Amino acid sequence: MKIYVDAMGGDHAPAEIVKGAVLAARDFDRKIHLIGNQELLEQELVKHGSVEGLIEIVHASEVVKNEDEPARVIRQKKDSSMVVGMRLLKEEPDAILVSAGSTGALLAGGTLLLGRIKGIQRPALTVALPSGKATPTLLLDVGANADCKASYLVQFAMMASVYAQNILDIPDPKVGLINIGTEANKGNELYKETYALLETSGLHFIGNVESRDLVTSEADILVCDGFTGNIILKLTEGLSGYIMGALKTAMTENLRSTMGAMLLKPALKKFKTKFDYKEYGGAPLLGIKSGIIKAHGSSDAKAFYNAIRQGIVFQEKKVLEKISNKIVEIQ
Amino acid sequence: MKIYVDAMGGDHAPAEIVKGAVLAARDFDRKIHLIGNQELLEQELVKHGSVEGLIEIVHASEVVKNEDEPARVIRQKKDSSMVVGMRLLKEEPDAILVSAGSTGALLAGGTLLLGRIKGIQRPALTVALPSGKATPTLLLDVGANADCKASYLVQFAMMASVYAQNILDIPDPKVGLINIGTEANKGNELYKETYALLETSGLHFIGNVESRDLVTSEADILVCDGFTGNIILKLTEGLSGYIMGALKTAMTENLRSTMGAMLLKPALKKFKTKFDYKEYGGAPLLGIKSGIIKAHGSSDAKAFYNAIRQGIVFQEKKVLEKISNKIVEIQ
Repeated sequence: MKIYVDAMGGDHAPAEIVKGAVLAARDFDRKIHLIGNQELLEQELVKHGSVEGLIEIVHASEVVKNEDEPARVIRQKKDSSMVVGMRLLKEEPDAILVSAGSTGALLAGGTLLLGRIKGIQRPALTVALPSGKATPTLLLDVGANADCKASYLVQFAMMASVYAQNILDIPDPKVGLINIGTEANKGNELYKETYALLETSGLHFIGNVESRDLVTSEADILVCDGFTGNIILKLTEGLSGYIMGALKTAMTENLRSTMGAMLLKPALKKFKTKFDYKEYGGAPLLGIKSGIIKAHGSSDAKAFYNAIRQGIVFQEKKVLEKISNKIVEIQ
Repeated sequence: MKIYVDAMGGDHAPAEIVKGAVLAARDFDRKIHLIGNQELLEQELVKHGSVEGLIEIVHASEVVKNEDEPARVIRQKKDSSMVVGMRLLKEEPDAILVSAGSTGALLAGGTLLLGRIKGIQRPALTVALPSGKATPTLLLDVGANADCKASYLVQFAMMASVYAQNILDIPDPKVGLINIGTEANKGNELYKETYALLETSGLHFIGNVESRDLVTSEADILVCDGFTGNIILKLTEGLSGYIMGALKTAMTENLRSTMGAMLLKPALKKFKTKFDYKEYGGAPLLGIKSGIIKAHGSSDAKAFYNAIRQGIVFQEKKVLEKISNKIVEIQ
């Protein structure tokens, strides 16, 4: 069961990706296949001492950029680290691929090249959100499907439940439905229908969750359509960034403020960690035949190390097989 | 043209409402009719010196609560300050009502008792969001219509444009469509269709705006369906509250932090004002036959004063008549 790493994806590739991969290979004693420009990767690898038997390079001459049209990447960038990685997955369905590259391209490539798990109507993009709990909250779909049917949302909840059980060690994950009110009859037609289906799904459905409770909700999984999820994800990122920026400005506007900010530094560092998406590593593309873990685009070595760890557990716990079995069971 | 004020609605009624109304009556030299419990209102009024000729009380024995089922308020709380206010509007269509009470009840009551402007398919709830500009950004619909058609969204944009021209003094307000990407082909079916309609609407349409740019967008008006708008509104409130709370905790965790926080106090006060929704007073229920200004539930005297000011301008500039004319024009 191989572990492939797209060494060229994300803002800090390849240096941080290589660093994270070497750390992971050593810690977990697993061989990692780095896909990317051979010369660049060798230059990075020499910084980390001997990696004999732990790291192997798979050369790929191109790189997928965020500006690339996702649906065209497979045909237009055949020798990119990402597409090479996906072609390797096609040959070895048990392998996993960890990438910090373009989410859209990973999803399009995964769906077109690898296909969906039998019975799954649509794959979903998942993110792990900071939460008040010991484990993050999984939010999905955050953008793979702008138009959804109620049955898709129920499948998203099921896939995320299997993932949470196996990767986050939550025995009976709680599923909440994102909505505009807590009562059963709230929301638009799609959400009313989804509510009814979730109630009889056999999942641990805890009802509607309003967006104001996104961070504080007891739900382990929050499901919604990809339009709503993408709005939530980007608003969360945008607003946090805006508030942090305004705070920074306020703290440096004069000498008195700067002195205060210096005294507050340790406390503020802890505060910032709370909102640091990197702590959670990656998130899976659920519903695709092979295991793809999407690491955050701004992943540093630590975040990428965490994403690889998730990938290894994903593989060892046979999450995809369990999703396959579950879909047969509930059909 | 009378000005009615629901003196019993909101978290700080009647004290802050009465205070704001007295200030407004004096500043704008307009008589204000306070609706609510006569005895309670008289007790409040004596605190503010002579209001001879400026304030008149309309007695109403009941109060609409946030827990009240909006659709039932008209029948079950006939003598509430809010319903009395709306009945007065029905008799005097040129009057305006300013209320900090339940939004749902105002909308249901407004729609059922007063009816929609001819040609308007659905009324919309609007909020004024803090922005990087001199004027706030209007976001609508934030919850009146969970299921929308593209034509509703275009009407929302038109109504908000008339409002922004007249109340915010923006000669040619820019309209953005909330979406999950900036390109024209982004979003679900509803949003793709709305995009096409907005392009030919004659409004100053500037294209899609992603939720991450909610606060920094150059748009004066952001339109979306009521489900999405409600998700955005509640997430914005929830996330700001959560971040502020975590910041406060970080700032008081030990002596060093507390000292730092003391030094930072003036800077942080300015920072908080940036996110203070009260600065903007109220927001109109657009599409209903009479002028109803909804003040924020937590309005203090200053916020309520601002909401009354908006109501007066709304009335004087004949915003409803202009919306009526515009709807005839674009049909």
